[in-house]
Amino acid sequence: MGISVVNYRVSEGSGSSWGVLRGDLIYPLSQSFSDHKELMACYFSEREKFNGLISGASVESKDMQFNSPVSQNVQLFLQGLNYADHRAESGASQDHGENLLFLKAPSSICGPNETILRPKGCQLLDYEIELALVMKESIAGPVEVEHSDLSKYVGGLVLCNDVSARDFMFGSPMLQWYRGKSQRTFCPMGPVLYLMDEEDFKQFFSLQLTLKLNGVTKQFASTDQLIHRPAETLTEISSFANLEAGDCILTGTPGGVLVNADFKTGLAIILNLQNDKKRRDKFTRAQLAQTRFLEPGDVLELSIKTPDGAIDLGTQRNEIADAR
Amino acid sequence: MGISVVNYRVSEGSGSSWGVLRGDLIYPLSQSFSDHKELMACYFSEREKFNGLISGASVESKDMQFNSPVSQNVQLFLQGLNYADHRAESGASQDHGENLLFLKAPSSICGPNETILRPKGCQLLDYEIELALVMKESIAGPVEVEHSDLSKYVGGLVLCNDVSARDFMFGSPMLQWYRGKSQRTFCPMGPVLYLMDEEDFKQFFSLQLTLKLNGVTKQFASTDQLIHRPAETLTEISSFANLEAGDCILTGTPGGVLVNADFKTGLAIILNLQNDKKRRDKFTRAQLAQTRFLEPGDVLELSIKTPDGAIDLGTQRNEIADAR
Repeated sequence: MGISVVNYRVSEGSGSSWGVLRGDLIYPLSQSFSDHKELMACYFSEREKFNGLISGASVESKDMQFNSPVSQNVQLFLQGLNYADHRAESGASQDHGENLLFLKAPSSICGPNETILRPKGCQLLDYEIELALVMKESIAGPVEVEHSDLSKYVGGLVLCNDVSARDFMFGSPMLQWYRGKSQRTFCPMGPVLYLMDEEDFKQFFSLQLTLKLNGVTKQFASTDQLIHRPAETLTEISSFANLEAGDCILTGTPGGVLVNADFKTGLAIILNLQNDKKRRDKFTRAQLAQTRFLEPGDVLELSIKTPDGAIDLGTQRNEIADAR
Repeated sequence: MGISVVNYRVSEGSGSSWGVLRGDLIYPLSQSFSDHKELMACYFSEREKFNGLISGASVESKDMQFNSPVSQNVQLFLQGLNYADHRAESGASQDHGENLLFLKAPSSICGPNETILRPKGCQLLDYEIELALVMKESIAGPVEVEHSDLSKYVGGLVLCNDVSARDFMFGSPMLQWYRGKSQRTFCPMGPVLYLMDEEDFKQFFSLQLTLKLNGVTKQFASTDQLIHRPAETLTEISSFANLEAGDCILTGTPGGVLVNADFKTGLAIILNLQNDKKRRDKFTRAQLAQTRFLEPGDVLELSIKTPDGAIDLGTQRNEIADAR
């Protein structure tokens, strides 16, 4: 069995502490770690010391506020179109193609219950529930990874929302995802950083992802639907770029997001590939005609866990508001 | 006048030192800095101390090997299609559209004279000479930057080659640039980290970029042709993401790269937007029919300087070889 770590504070503006979550109780750690990298290094290489840091007394988790357990000094690798039903609703081909990899700015990371800010000019604000893998070892050259040795490289799991401004993604030339996904507050993470033990990897493909918008379930899927799996993805990233301990791989979102590529939308993109403004305007109009996107006051609720609850990454609850 | 800083070693595998380059001589610094961030902090906030570190004795720069003056613990922000002639050869519209921003993996950074490795499977290896800005201050929220106060945020200039595997860029779904530009050795930087003083900013738009392939000039341009200029770009990036001191903004490449979008190539992309393999195959065939891309044994030579040589970012010389 792994362990559920949280970073929390008593109230807005007060200092942060690390603790271990068991049921509804947090058992504070008696040592402070500057970030999740330091904590993970201690957990994975000095287990006895780490266990000795867990205090006997506990606090009620409902009285605490959660920070992101992952700090901003990381790379966020993203996989796109990595569930078949999301490929279909995005208008992507079903032949699965290549593993779509890109980066999201780490300054988009925020706490699991922070308000998500809709940027000025954004009309197509969307959600994407995703499971993130947290690296425990750095990789500085090509490695061939099998699922059976994933535990050498991956140490943690975190619940993420890959919030996306769809109009920004299609407004930049050449369909760049970076800007549309990198705005501040666009990556709520946590509350739990689940540090995996060897046996947890057997349950990896039975994690269930659930996202509700204003109480209505919009995304529900299992990690057994992942197309490009973690071992394949690590092999591929490591073939050309380095990963540092603490870096995260967001494994993609299942179907059920708000954006939906009908024939008219796809045509608006293809026919206007050379004209940024026209492409975005036509895309935005086509989308708004068929879907209501996120608006101030909307509430998202996200969770990821195994059916038996053995691995439970906790629940995020976020309100939407307009950026000032 | 600013100062030209270099990071060098006596021979392959020997320790690295920092020094100040004046003409053909390097004046070693008597203090070691862990990276360019530490060095820049010292230079910009403790000038007298920094000046006291410059030794009186010197070594010949021709006897030394240069490392990248920028370390890999940074974000590399890239601007795409930021010179009119490069927009034209890329088949992008001439209305300039939006500032195309994306990230390149920092593990692509290598020394200014290192061998550039053509990855397995890559047929369309290309170069892009670029001027990089190096941040001296972190920005953690939206700021409105004017050229006249650029010196508050930008401290250094570096010569870069944004090496690009064109087939990889068009192979991923949705035309993602990240993989095609992030391979190891795809970002030779240096040799000089030029630390700017206030007056240098007046010369910013008269820097000349020159790239030669096997002795033939292929790219030649001036920074006065930049479309989205540094102040505008900093304003825009800061509107949604954080920049840390030491991070770099690669400001885009001028015309003269090897890839060239004729009508047939553009059509191959647009008609096959939904099929990764077909799109890349058709694009690659169309490109190879009209251009010889970089091959093992080719030699690139890059330089950036003002016509009077007052600012001189040095010369890069790289050979191409196949990755093992």
